[in-house]
Amino acid sequence: MRVLVTGGAGCIGSDLVAMLASNGHEVRILDNLSSGRRRHLTPLLDLPHVEFTEGDLLDWPTVDRALSDVEFVHHLAANPDIKFDVDEPTDKDLRQNVLATYHVLEAMRKRGVRRIAFTSTSAVYGRSSVLPIPEDLALPRPISLYGASKLACEHLLSAFQNLFEFECWIFRLANIVGPKVRKRGRTVLADFISRLFKDPERLVILGDGTQQKSYLLTSECVDAMLHCIEHARESFNIFNVGGDDWISVSRIAELVVEAMGLPNVRFEYTGGDGGWPGDVSRFRLDVSRVNALGWRACHNSEEAIRQTIKDLLEQPSLFDSTGDG
Amino acid sequence: MRVLVTGGAGCIGSDLVAMLASNGHEVRILDNLSSGRRRHLTPLLDLPHVEFTEGDLLDWPTVDRALSDVEFVHHLAANPDIKFDVDEPTDKDLRQNVLATYHVLEAMRKRGVRRIAFTSTSAVYGRSSVLPIPEDLALPRPISLYGASKLACEHLLSAFQNLFEFECWIFRLANIVGPKVRKRGRTVLADFISRLFKDPERLVILGDGTQQKSYLLTSECVDAMLHCIEHARESFNIFNVGGDDWISVSRIAELVVEAMGLPNVRFEYTGGDGGWPGDVSRFRLDVSRVNALGWRACHNSEEAIRQTIKDLLEQPSLFDSTGDG
Repeated sequence: MRVLVTGGAGCIGSDLVAMLASNGHEVRILDNLSSGRRRHLTPLLDLPHVEFTEGDLLDWPTVDRALSDVEFVHHLAANPDIKFDVDEPTDKDLRQNVLATYHVLEAMRKRGVRRIAFTSTSAVYGRSSVLPIPEDLALPRPISLYGASKLACEHLLSAFQNLFEFECWIFRLANIVGPKVRKRGRTVLADFISRLFKDPERLVILGDGTQQKSYLLTSECVDAMLHCIEHARESFNIFNVGGDDWISVSRIAELVVEAMGLPNVRFEYTGGDGGWPGDVSRFRLDVSRVNALGWRACHNSEEAIRQTIKDLLEQPSLFDSTGDG
Repeated sequence: MRVLVTGGAGCIGSDLVAMLASNGHEVRILDNLSSGRRRHLTPLLDLPHVEFTEGDLLDWPTVDRALSDVEFVHHLAANPDIKFDVDEPTDKDLRQNVLATYHVLEAMRKRGVRRIAFTSTSAVYGRSSVLPIPEDLALPRPISLYGASKLACEHLLSAFQNLFEFECWIFRLANIVGPKVRKRGRTVLADFISRLFKDPERLVILGDGTQQKSYLLTSECVDAMLHCIEHARESFNIFNVGGDDWISVSRIAELVVEAMGLPNVRFEYTGGDGGWPGDVSRFRLDVSRVNALGWRACHNSEEAIRQTIKDLLEQPSLFDSTGDG
């Protein structure tokens, strides 16, 4: 089967491409390399039946061409930053997530491609008084532009599913971690390591450190998604994919310090509940729906974090002051 | 207080403008007259403190200017057609609802305007196994591009509320009827009357006639919205607004025939469950949340329909073959 992977040069996308290729599929990658990295593609492009187009989903002819002779779309490309910086345009998510996804769906409709997997996010839920959060939480209430845009994409899929007989698999991902780092400083782990390289005696931690998050390895995330596509047979499927326990930010800091062998690090907390506006301080997904399909993570959150720290420390060049990660 | 009403030339918008003006507010109307009608504005523009700008929400400078010196926004402008015609572009709702709403929110943010009422739709719910439908239904699942776009707008409001301290009132409206008809043939009532003027012996009814819908008069809808804005004090409020009983499409046909005094009309049913793709055959909102604020409709669905038929028949020119309604 020929499949298209948008965002295939990303941390999750490139792992997905590798898995699809090893399962015998012909894989076309479309990525604008805005957050994806060419180095993630290098080993993949040596594989037979893997092709890469550098292109942007906001460019309609590019999207339309990418859909020719494709049977299945894995749509992962997105602006991945949940944090909103005040000097950023407020329509970044609207363009790069909603409009981009519309282009994918419309090109699929025109080309007669009907099956799509879409990586959404746990940020659709916003703050929830229910923990862990099930997929059918009453009225998800996103508090970030990123979460709002991803939920809007889900609704577009919902309408296309009904009007044009699409089959959809939506994955709401939470804190997927792995050896590939998109951008230094944008994830808590890479941020801690990066700052400890600079100053091995002091670590500033956003919030009060009690924030609780759950983590899942990229490789397990990809495995869960492919398992769901194979085993979930509704025409519209939504699955939470994430770790099913949690770990505190302070504990993550301890694990980093321990792995780096730093004896005297002073933790300094900025205080407050969440790390940044839009942050959700305690968060865990209910993953019983994906578990009920027969899939279960092999590593818990602390193991995923330990493994990822180890992988990152094996690539010290990631943390050179000149590199962009 | 100076308020902006987008879509103020529409059926609901113009009633809202009249009510706001009579309550002593200065009202600025912004409408591109794509579905609003100049004749709805004629009586309003004689009122003191009511001004009108013809302009499009997709034109950023127009939106930005419209927000100057405003304290409250009633955002009603939208593509109002829930039906999707196969020859239409599939991005109509995305542009006219989502992008337009983004422009309103962004102009508000830049101008320091923080309070917005937004007319959403019961179409956000799609098909629901729960009837009547409460506001906090688990995961609304729109099946139309229109419903998907309106729900996407709600999420944008949600994000702006959280990030920029907006106050939001969202109204999910269902089947609002009144003497103003936007476009002949687009609502079941005007459609029936129009076709019976042409052929008083035969009426084609989409579906099997057992579709159940609830109806609320425009005047009562406006009254409910203003009541909620006055009495609901959360920073993010969502209310269903609609009739709290229902009436079948066949019964509506009987009421039209009776009011027109036609003795021998043959009803012909196209058959099937819903009237058109994306139609929901049985539909009623749970309006207990607005009722709990002390508001209740004075007319039930059949009374609203009877009143509207009477009002429409008093304007036979609406149904001239040359008029566009």
